[in-house]
Amino acid sequence: MSKEFALINALRGLATHSAARGLADDCAVLDFGGEALVITHDMMVEGIHWLPGQDMADVAWKLVATNLSDLAAKGAEPVGVLLGFTLGKQDDRFVSGLGDALNAFNVPLLGGDTVSANGPRSLGLTALGRATHRPVPSRAGAKPGDPLWITGPIGAAMLGFEALRDGSGGDSTAFRRPVPCLAEGLALAPLVTAMMDVSDGLLIDAARMADASNVTFDIDTAAVPFPADLPPSRRQEAMRWGDDYALLLTLPPATAPPCPAFCIGHARMRMSSPVIVDGAVPQGALGYVHD
Amino acid sequence: MSKEFALINALRGLATHSAARGLADDCAVLDFGGEALVITHDMMVEGIHWLPGQDMADVAWKLVATNLSDLAAKGAEPVGVLLGFTLGKQDDRFVSGLGDALNAFNVPLLGGDTVSANGPRSLGLTALGRATHRPVPSRAGAKPGDPLWITGPIGAAMLGFEALRDGSGGDSTAFRRPVPCLAEGLALAPLVTAMMDVSDGLLIDAARMADASNVTFDIDTAAVPFPADLPPSRRQEAMRWGDDYALLLTLPPATAPPCPAFCIGHARMRMSSPVIVDGAVPQGALGYVHD
Repeated sequence: MSKEFALINALRGLATHSAARGLADDCAVLDFGGEALVITHDMMVEGIHWLPGQDMADVAWKLVATNLSDLAAKGAEPVGVLLGFTLGKQDDRFVSGLGDALNAFNVPLLGGDTVSANGPRSLGLTALGRATHRPVPSRAGAKPGDPLWITGPIGAAMLGFEALRDGSGGDSTAFRRPVPCLAEGLALAPLVTAMMDVSDGLLIDAARMADASNVTFDIDTAAVPFPADLPPSRRQEAMRWGDDYALLLTLPPATAPPCPAFCIGHARMRMSSPVIVDGAVPQGALGYVHD
Repeated sequence: MSKEFALINALRGLATHSAARGLADDCAVLDFGGEALVITHDMMVEGIHWLPGQDMADVAWKLVATNLSDLAAKGAEPVGVLLGFTLGKQDDRFVSGLGDALNAFNVPLLGGDTVSANGPRSLGLTALGRATHRPVPSRAGAKPGDPLWITGPIGAAMLGFEALRDGSGGDSTAFRRPVPCLAEGLALAPLVTAMMDVSDGLLIDAARMADASNVTFDIDTAAVPFPADLPPSRRQEAMRWGDDYALLLTLPPATAPPCPAFCIGHARMRMSSPVIVDGAVPQGALGYVHD
């Protein structure tokens, strides 16, 4: 863990562009031809990001969706993706799911590379977008008093993962085929004080936004939208599970969101803890910690 | 082989942008904000693209250099790179070599992702550039009568690879630390009828340019620049070995190159073979064939 953390910090030290301070966390934003180019690169690894034996069509979909979710959080329209693909089993299924996702989100495959390798496969996707509003939303703008909003439910991916893993016959769509909040991101970008997508868990991602904005978020569990079939006893766990890909954002106090969203708390002056849940400092890991 | 070829074709079928017809071969070129954005993504896999035990600083350098070489062939100035990195051994050496390359080529690390995985590691790099001349050079513009030029020696990487593999003490720099021809690409872009970088071997890359341009190239082995220590008996082999990262280009007949370059043949009306070497159709594989 400490070795990996040291590496990330070393890579961040190399990163001369301010956007790259968010290496492994966030998009880069570049001025290009007078417009703001938003670019992100995420990887998925067999056995870590997908279950061995999982339908590669779903893996392809998720690879596209998770990268586009990063663009959504910047209020960016996707302009294309590049694929880094390790050849292996079910390549036809991968192509099928990739086509589904590219069609669903209306984004072209611009290029990429394919390689052969033994062992667990890794996949990479680079997504490019055009920001529709300046300044481009970041994690850093939340101010004390700003309400904290989320655009969708927390915990549906966790339940979907378990249904798929256990073969229970339950609905696994939310885990297999997440939908990036592109339209919501476009509508919200002109209004938000801070925005990001929730990928690693509500609490850890809220903590990251709090750190970037130098505030603390008060979160009210009773206000968080959970799926109807989530037992109340699992709500704290769901807030620590990732893969839901809702947008998390702050708005000025009097501003109503232009799309469906749930107010789950508010920002306050920075305290020692970045998040407070139901009035107390949450215990244990806040979510999935990236390598 | 046929399965892999089918996959590449399936991916190309998904690629709606014309540039992506060159998936796994070439850069994409996108109009963005009135400028031409050039973007490429290449992967390297342990045991395939680098020797197990090789210094990861050299691997990092090569990952950057090979992607920038793709930009060079488009006459593009690099504006940044994104890294997809699998954690493993020698991560500190990787960071060191990455820093060397970013400094040497004056390009910022914009972002990326890191993952953990067991088994052979794979690395991906996305490089972004700004084209300095329109139309952006492609492989498709060579015309019968155009002389064929190359900017650097062929075979140095092969000798370097062997020196490294065998621990002979010979100079392995050309294999370990290739230098993309960025300045040459900028100078050549306004003049060329076609241009690409030589990555998989002179003959196979020339054949790709010939196919894209619908011409046949006559290549004269005696005119090809080889390293002084390459035995003449190995020249045909060297023309089938990759990793040299020179630029291969055609110019109109009366145009002199603005940088050091060697005229190694010329384009003629298309025949059945894309390349003719010393007056005959070359036998056997022309170079490294991508998966």
